[in-house]
This record gives sequence, C-alpha cells and structure tokens, in this order.
Amino acid sequence: MDLNKSTSRYSGDGVMRYARTIVAGTVTVLAASASVAADDASLLKQAEESFRPLPKHESASEIPETKERITLGRLLFFDPRITVDGNMSCATCHQPALYGADGLSKSIGVQQRPHPRNAPTVLNSGVNIIVHWRGDRESLEDQAIKALGSPITNGQPDIGAALDRLKRIAGYAPLFEAAFPGDAASLNVGNVANAISAYERTLVTPAPFDAYLAGNVDAQSPSARGGLEDFINFGCTACLNGVGIGGNMYQKFGIVEDYWTATGSQTVDKGRADVTNNPADLYFFRVPSLRNVAMTAPYFHDGSIATLPEAVRVMAGVQLGLTTSEHEVDDIVSFLKSLTGELPSQFATVPILPPTAVIPAQH
Amino acid sequence: MDLNKSTSRYSGDGVMRYARTIVAGTVTVLAASASVAADDASLLKQAEESFRPLPKHESASEIPETKERITLGRLLFFDPRITVDGNMSCATCHQPALYGADGLSKSIGVQQRPHPRNAPTVLNSGVNIIVHWRGDRESLEDQAIKALGSPITNGQPDIGAALDRLKRIAGYAPLFEAAFPGDAASLNVGNVANAISAYERTLVTPAPFDAYLAGNVDAQSPSARGGLEDFINFGCTACLNGVGIGGNMYQKFGIVEDYWTATGSQTVDKGRADVTNNPADLYFFRVPSLRNVAMTAPYFHDGSIATLPEAVRVMAGVQLGLTTSEHEVDDIVSFLKSLTGELPSQFATVPILPPTAVIPAQH
Repeated sequence: MDLNKSTSRYSGDGVMRYARTIVAGTVTVLAASASVAADDASLLKQAEESFRPLPKHESASEIPETKERITLGRLLFFDPRITVDGNMSCATCHQPALYGADGLSKSIGVQQRPHPRNAPTVLNSGVNIIVHWRGDRESLEDQAIKALGSPITNGQPDIGAALDRLKRIAGYAPLFEAAFPGDAASLNVGNVANAISAYERTLVTPAPFDAYLAGNVDAQSPSARGGLEDFINFGCTACLNGVGIGGNMYQKFGIVEDYWTATGSQTVDKGRADVTNNPADLYFFRVPSLRNVAMTAPYFHDGSIATLPEAVRVMAGVQLGLTTSEHEVDDIVSFLKSLTGELPSQFATVPILPPTAVIPAQH
Repeated sequence: MDLNKSTSRYSGDGVMRYARTIVAGTVTVLAASASVAADDASLLKQAEESFRPLPKHESASEIPETKERITLGRLLFFDPRITVDGNMSCATCHQPALYGADGLSKSIGVQQRPHPRNAPTVLNSGVNIIVHWRGDRESLEDQAIKALGSPITNGQPDIGAALDRLKRIAGYAPLFEAAFPGDAASLNVGNVANAISAYERTLVTPAPFDAYLAGNVDAQSPSARGGLEDFINFGCTACLNGVGIGGNMYQKFGIVEDYWTATGSQTVDKGRADVTNNPADLYFFRVPSLRNVAMTAPYFHDGSIATLPEAVRVMAGVQLGLTTSEHEVDDIVSFLKSLTGELPSQFATVPILPPTAVIPAQH
C-alpha cells in the first residue's frame, strides 16, 4: 500500500495520514489513480482487496445458535408485551417494512421518550464488529440486555418486570425450555438476549455486490461499477470496508471540517468520547455498515441528512475534503444501491405470538 | 322458530323476548333442547342455519378493488410516516403478530394519547356489517378517513398534512396513478381510504369451522362440536351468527345484569347511545365477530377480560343469565378456537415501503 500514490482529489496529506493511522493494517487499496481507467477485471480485483462477500450466517457468539433459539428469538423480537405499555417491540425501531430501521432521524421510545440517536438497521448486525453508534454495547447480547433495562426502550422499573411479562404469557415457557434445555430456570435475561441475538444473526442480506465480489461482473451495472471505482479511488474504503462495508471501526465524523456545519445538526454529539472519557475520541462514531443504506434513510448518527446523494456529498466533504461532481455522486449512489439485499423471509414475515393478554388493563 | 321450546337453562322469558326482538327474522335456531343429543348430521344442519362459511373475498364496496389498489393499500396500511411523529401505522394497533389486534385493553395512539376502546382485529373486517364498537363509522373507507383525521390515531392538524407526507415519499405517486388511473389528482384522501379498504377486504381467514360448515364434520374436534352445540342451545347464536359469527348487529352489553359488575370495568361506557343520543341505545355495542377470537385477547369493548374462558362465563352470565359448567366452558372455548384461520400471507408478510425520509428531523 502506497498512500503517496493517492489521487490528487484528496485534499491534503494530513487527511491521508489520519486515515492511515486509523486503519493501519486493514486497508490495502487506495493506490489506484482515478486517471487510470481500470478494466473490469482489475476493478474487481481491487474490490476483492477491500471487501468480503456476506456469509450466509456469521456468528460472533460463543453460544450455539440452534433452530429453537432462533425461533424463540424471532417471537421475542416482535413481541410488544415486554415493554412498559405493551405497545413497542424491537420491531418498532427495527421495522421489516423499513428494512430494519424506522425512517426517523432519531427513534421514539416508550411513552414518547426520545432516543438520543438514529436507529441502525438490525439487518446484518451480526456482521458488524461494533454494535451501535458509540460502541457502548459489547455485543448483540449486551445490546438486547441494555434495551431490556433501558427507561427509553423498555420503560419498566427493572429487567425483572420485563421477564415477568414473559412468564405470564402461556406458550413461552416451553419454548425457553426447548431452546435452553440445560437450564433449570431457562426464562432468564441472559437467555432472552441469547435468543434475540441468535435470531438477529440470521438476518443477513446478500446483495448484487456480493455476486459481483464472487466474480459475476455483470451483477453490477456500469454506473455501479463506476461508483465502486470512485468509492475506492476517493479513499472511502479506508473506513468503509470488509464484509459489512463498514461497521468494523470507529472514525471521527468531521475530519476535514465540523460535521454539524455540513449536516445542519442542531445539537453536537460528542460520540465515543462520552463513553470512554478520552478526548481523543471526540466526535468519533462507529463507521456504519453501508449494506442496505439505500433503504434506511435518514442518515448519520442523528439522522440529519434525508437523502443518499446528500449523504455522499457530506461524507466526501467532511471526511475527505472532496467536492464531488453530480456524475460521481450518481455513480456512487448506484454502487450503494447494489448493497441492497433481499429482506430475509424470517424478518419480512412476522411470527404469530402466543396470544395471552398480560398488560395491566386500563378499562 | 319456536322460542318457547328453548332449554330451561335460560334464566327467564324476559331474556328470550329480548333476543327475539333484537334479531327478528335473522335467527332460526334456538329450538334444540340440550337434553336431546344431536347427532353429527343434525348439529351440522343446525349450524348451517345460523352460520355461513367465509367467502374468499367479500366486498361491501361499490368501488372496484383492483390488484393495484390492494398493493397500494397494503403499503399505506404499514406506513408509519403518515402519522404525526412517523412512528405509528395502521399496523401498530392491528399487528400481524397479534392477529390484527394489539393485545392491549385499550390501544395507545400517537404521543401516548389513549384510545377510548379496544382495537378490534382488522381480519375479516370487510365481512362485518358494522364497523367498530359503536357503529360510528359508515364503512371501512369511513374508518380510514376518520383515522387519518383523528388526533389520537394520526395527530396531525388535518388530513392534508398526512397527504403531504405521502406526496413527499418518492414512489407513491406512480402507485396512486396506477391504482386510480382516471383521477387527475389521484393522491387524495378518498383514494387513500379506498386503497386501504381494498387491502383490508382481502384479509379473510377461513377456519376449520368453515370446512365443517362445508360438510367436513371431522374438521371440528368432538369437544368443538360439543361447544358448538352448547353455543347454539344456550342461545349465543341469537346475536353471534352469520358469516362473521357476529359483527352484524348491535346488542346491549348487560341484558341480565350490568356488564361492569361482571367485568370489573372501571369506567362505564354508554356505547352507541353516545352516538345516536337515543336512550334506547344505552350500553349497546356492536356484537363483535368471533372469528380469530382465541388469538385476540383481551376481550370486550374495554378489554376488561383477559382470557377466553372468563369471557365466555361473563357473556353467559350478563347476556343470558346462565351459569356455565367448567366442561361447557371448555367445549365452547374449543369451538371458538375452531374459528381461528390462517393469517393471510399479504398480512403476515409486510411490504417493503418506499424508503424516503420525510419526518421533520430532530437532530
């Protein structure tokens, strides 16, 4: 890798050094000059150096993910009766109809309590190395547990109250026993989190770009291939790479200029610095996975940008100091659209919940 | 029909006269004595006199329901961006995972505003002659329009604001044009209501009981057949009859005794009298359809009863003055479970919405 060969479209050496520092050892592409027209084979080769196709089911969990756990986790994911008023489930902020997100800049929790950040799609979340915007969740399991205990997401006094709801729904106990046969008291918070996470890890969405990475050049339109070339040559792959095309590192939002100037954000989120108390993490956020990005507007940690072309322009400007042409933006958007996969059937089709009424009546 | 032959389990002649008055001309069964063990054929014959099997698609609308309208209506039904904060759709109170209801005693609307009554399932709503609990909606179309204009269901200042959201979602305009090709400005409130209603009318759920009515006696378990016999002999069919097994008449809730005594309701709902201002309608509600009743707890207009056996006991008591044995309740519950149909695939599987972000950002 020779960053000195990078195209003159980069705004300055400082930016590139920064990228090199952050991604040391992970980025091997950045070297091709935009002035060299890469032919199909060499572009594919470049792409293969930055990206990996999506596996059918990628698990980062040490706990076995059995069919019984996935079935149970799917029910729990869609069950609103876990939350304080019984009207919000995981699927409220991660809606199948909106590709696992909710279409809002920031989600609305129970009893109208505002979530501080945009809901990332749950699709391919098992592939992401970092969970959520600031990395304050250790894993999908930890995210599920924190959501169950959150006053915004769940709203009950403690996790025990959420578990109590499940215990009162006839039909859950045997499913927990089947999913966790070794446990004496299988309906517990750890198993709820394990089951939900096991289900979430099945939600992978292979896309046309994966077919392209597997060697089928025609799976990408000419415009999408042009966008891929721009994406590589502009240096986007410094952060947006790997199987998730993002989701595997932190990066400062606003390397070249303050992000809120470009996004019009009304509040300034310090990002990961609020988690680590390390000033070096100021304005650092997880680099989001770009899989299905065309289906999950609005964009960024605060949902401040409504459209994908505008998000591309903002990223090129505040991260790379680039001004992009309309043609380049169009091509990159074509490339990003090639990251849209098919909605998994176990997500598009909702399960039928055990029908017991357990919410305190208001009659 | 000879009501004088009714079983001695009825509490008194007054009740029966009442039933006769309400359902004059519609009830032809009530005559069999519980002491006569009806054989399978005669029970089926009795059932056929009270009930009709579910048609594949029953339309009460004069407006043609085309494939394009149904497709559009399905999207609108699941789209939360129509409502004030963009976080609630028709599917919030009519969830596929909860058989078209929401599991709450009374639904929670936008911005935590309480709905006054329990959400009836949207399944088979096209079959019901009366829409909603008090009959204050003329039709499914009228229900959709009233929901769009409601401060509880939608929360925007007027219907125009809801339409404006749709106009800003790329992808809807061509769907409205395709669904309503004759209209110059096809994205209008009437067409939104027509499309949603066209979709809703497809949500029919043929059940084992329909197979039984078609002549397949074994589609009902012996217990369900016993429950059907009790259901007929007790006089439940006076109100709960027809294709919906209910849904086609008003009836006073609490003929024999005040309903709130039996249900523990904390507030007394005057029912249809508040709509008609007619004292004769005091405590009258739509007789709900019993289709899928086993999947849509809790029960009654205020969701005051959590379980089906208890709902059966309450109904027998306050409507008919009967005390039911545990065995009778079990059998009737078996019969009611035979009214559970399969969830239609166009409801269990959600559509993918056009992904445009249109909710005012809070960033």
